[in-house]
Amino acid sequence: MYDIIVIGGGPAGISAAIYAASRGKKTLVLEKDKVGGIIGKVSTVTHYTAIVEGETGATFARRMESQALAAGVEIAREEVIGAKLVGDVKEIRTAGNTYLAPRVIIAGGSSPRKLGVPGEKELSGKGMGMNAARDGEAYRGKNIYVVGGADGAVKEALYLARFAKTLTIIHFEEKLGCIPEFAVKVAAADNIKLMLRSRLTAVGGSGRVEWLEITNEDNGAKQKIQDDGCGIFVYAGTVPNTDIYGELELENGFIPVDEKMRTAIDGVYAAGDIRVKQLRQVATAVADGAIAAVNAAL
Amino acid sequence: MYDIIVIGGGPAGISAAIYAASRGKKTLVLEKDKVGGIIGKVSTVTHYTAIVEGETGATFARRMESQALAAGVEIAREEVIGAKLVGDVKEIRTAGNTYLAPRVIIAGGSSPRKLGVPGEKELSGKGMGMNAARDGEAYRGKNIYVVGGADGAVKEALYLARFAKTLTIIHFEEKLGCIPEFAVKVAAADNIKLMLRSRLTAVGGSGRVEWLEITNEDNGAKQKIQDDGCGIFVYAGTVPNTDIYGELELENGFIPVDEKMRTAIDGVYAAGDIRVKQLRQVATAVADGAIAAVNAAL
Repeated sequence: MYDIIVIGGGPAGISAAIYAASRGKKTLVLEKDKVGGIIGKVSTVTHYTAIVEGETGATFARRMESQALAAGVEIAREEVIGAKLVGDVKEIRTAGNTYLAPRVIIAGGSSPRKLGVPGEKELSGKGMGMNAARDGEAYRGKNIYVVGGADGAVKEALYLARFAKTLTIIHFEEKLGCIPEFAVKVAAADNIKLMLRSRLTAVGGSGRVEWLEITNEDNGAKQKIQDDGCGIFVYAGTVPNTDIYGELELENGFIPVDEKMRTAIDGVYAAGDIRVKQLRQVATAVADGAIAAVNAAL
Repeated sequence: MYDIIVIGGGPAGISAAIYAASRGKKTLVLEKDKVGGIIGKVSTVTHYTAIVEGETGATFARRMESQALAAGVEIAREEVIGAKLVGDVKEIRTAGNTYLAPRVIIAGGSSPRKLGVPGEKELSGKGMGMNAARDGEAYRGKNIYVVGGADGAVKEALYLARFAKTLTIIHFEEKLGCIPEFAVKVAAADNIKLMLRSRLTAVGGSGRVEWLEITNEDNGAKQKIQDDGCGIFVYAGTVPNTDIYGELELENGFIPVDEKMRTAIDGVYAAGDIRVKQLRQVATAVADGAIAAVNAAL
């Protein structure tokens, strides 16, 4: 029996756990992968106040984990596969265990969206859909493609351009959808090319990417690009990890909360990217976590 | 003419400025003192996710400032003494200048509350009402008194105990009003003494504190403690720095905002400790700043 179970070990979950522990609560974080969530996999952490210069997602995540452990938080690397949230004692199920607590903070974040195109699954991790921070170096001197035009995509494109012969951003809109800071840097880079009004509709190859098919959004024309051994990094948005919370009413897949991060179910809170909100950033995730925990601990 | 003027260089203001600059906005921060705000003066920064171990307020504040400057933010060390907020162009006055912008983010935080007791003013900086992180060392081997029992007071008491012969926490309630994490550490410290249901009602001395007068809350009994050369650190809450915003309706001195940090005046936002909110922490301040800036930049 715990006082508070936190589902998810990204910035929202870790912040919640640190605050819960500071309030003297016996706190468990359940995280299916490494501590860090999506931010743990980025090449650089940006815009979070007082961030260490040159901070990578990996170093940021390691510091998050040490801080939580030092605060007395327990962290179990288990995927949550079911939850019974209504009632005084909540039951959180993983493959091997069922954990109980009167309070639960859902901070399960979101997962990268797949493109769902032919060849994506077969070539996953073999040139397609990788982690820029971890895998970028392996494509030094090769051509690199980034799919997506929002902040996350363009930030990784700017990072990957240091390795790429040519870096091509494939985006379906007429222009990039990123913040001016990143757009200015793209314009200044000499090896970044934009392929706009374009979608990646297929990839092929045997054990590595050998070709890409690009479809023009305006006229549907398809072109096949031969580019043996290139790397494709996909940032096509994310989907909230809310499938297992059948007891909660969702809005477009996200969990609605009030200003105290309370969901519609007593004793259940949500924090970070998984909740209905305007701005999904580390800065707002850690605030959500703090607020959720302080209220859950009352 | 700036795009966005941010009043205050604490975590909320710096976060706002970093986000505003990332949106391509010409951004000015006006800060009357050093960048950092109240957090820049604490002995240790706690509970902010991924904080550097052993982080002091001073090192935290320096990293905040470098990050903002690197982002292209201008910082002017000037105190805001007047503001005309209604209208398309806002006028922000300092002693020497008037700055103009269509958007203003008020992140002026709060100031430590004075006790208002005899001797406080005369002995200010001479044993009374100092900065623990900067001045604590000077009281090594002396007795130290901390006035206040909330988180901020007890955190500094725990820090100051390393220097003190005996550290006494003077608090008017029956028990400390701090989080369990701090209460447990106080109980474990062998040189921290609690003086509860007590108020510091006068101090005296010539060029240094020579005596304190303590008044018992229950029976009004006064005792005079002779303690030549002791140090007194006061954490008796804070008051929001909202005196100059006569155009805004305040709630208990704080600025009400909506979930986008918009005040009742078009183009004027508020963020951090200065706004009406439940939880005043670095974590929530940086979120406020990010949200205010993203909306001000739209």
